[in-house]
Amino acid sequence: MNVTRIDQIAIAVDDLDAALELWERAFGLVPESRERVESDGVEEAMLNVNGVFIQLLQATRDDSPIAKFIERSGPGLHHVGFGVTSVQDALDHLRAADVRLIDDAPRPGGGGHTVAFVHPKGTNGVLVELVEDHL
Amino acid sequence: MNVTRIDQIAIAVDDLDAALELWERAFGLVPESRERVESDGVEEAMLNVNGVFIQLLQATRDDSPIAKFIERSGPGLHHVGFGVTSVQDALDHLRAADVRLIDDAPRPGGGGHTVAFVHPKGTNGVLVELVEDHL
Repeated sequence: MNVTRIDQIAIAVDDLDAALELWERAFGLVPESRERVESDGVEEAMLNVNGVFIQLLQATRDDSPIAKFIERSGPGLHHVGFGVTSVQDALDHLRAADVRLIDDAPRPGGGGHTVAFVHPKGTNGVLVELVEDHL
Repeated sequence: MNVTRIDQIAIAVDDLDAALELWERAFGLVPESRERVESDGVEEAMLNVNGVFIQLLQATRDDSPIAKFIERSGPGLHHVGFGVTSVQDALDHLRAADVRLIDDAPRPGGGGHTVAFVHPKGTNGVLVELVEDHL
């Protein structure tokens, strides 16, 4: 298992436009990209902080995981993305290490990247996304 | 306001020893330092991921903010630390930008660094720590 870098810190927000205005006003951060990922039920904006992304996530439908998260806990820190050389190898390693997974196999995520999620029950309550390294 | 880098991603845990065993077994990460910060009521371990720290935080007393956080929400993502060139300048900027603060002035934090906390009500439910750049 090779965690190469922190890829992203993801934050669930109610209103992406208002959040972007806030993060620019407060911290001087502007989005490098903005995208709807229909398969995950989210619209996301990526703010680049010296190579690590702050990802702001707004739900696009009521049954989106982000909508459910906000209903349960309000807006806030949602997950952390770890860069790995191979999501498949990382999943094999985690299974062997007896760490509970959400995704059994790599799948497409935002930005066309290959990703998989690890279950927070296995990692101190932290939802971890594995993001395959890309150029 | 100059957010120069992500300094840390802080995670509240029940049992620091068990968490360190888990983060090594799951992700191959080992602590670079471990410290009790009595003023904050925490014992913390820092795992270096390519220059960004995963900070594991265990409460050292029942009235510690980490103890209260875990009682309310369970273990999990607690706050994010942003590197800034000057905590004082960042606080002045945030006050002018009408962002709610926890600390009105810079104060000492873990590792001997100068820090201040921004209120999560002002930043989409995310507790933000400002950490002054250091060599």
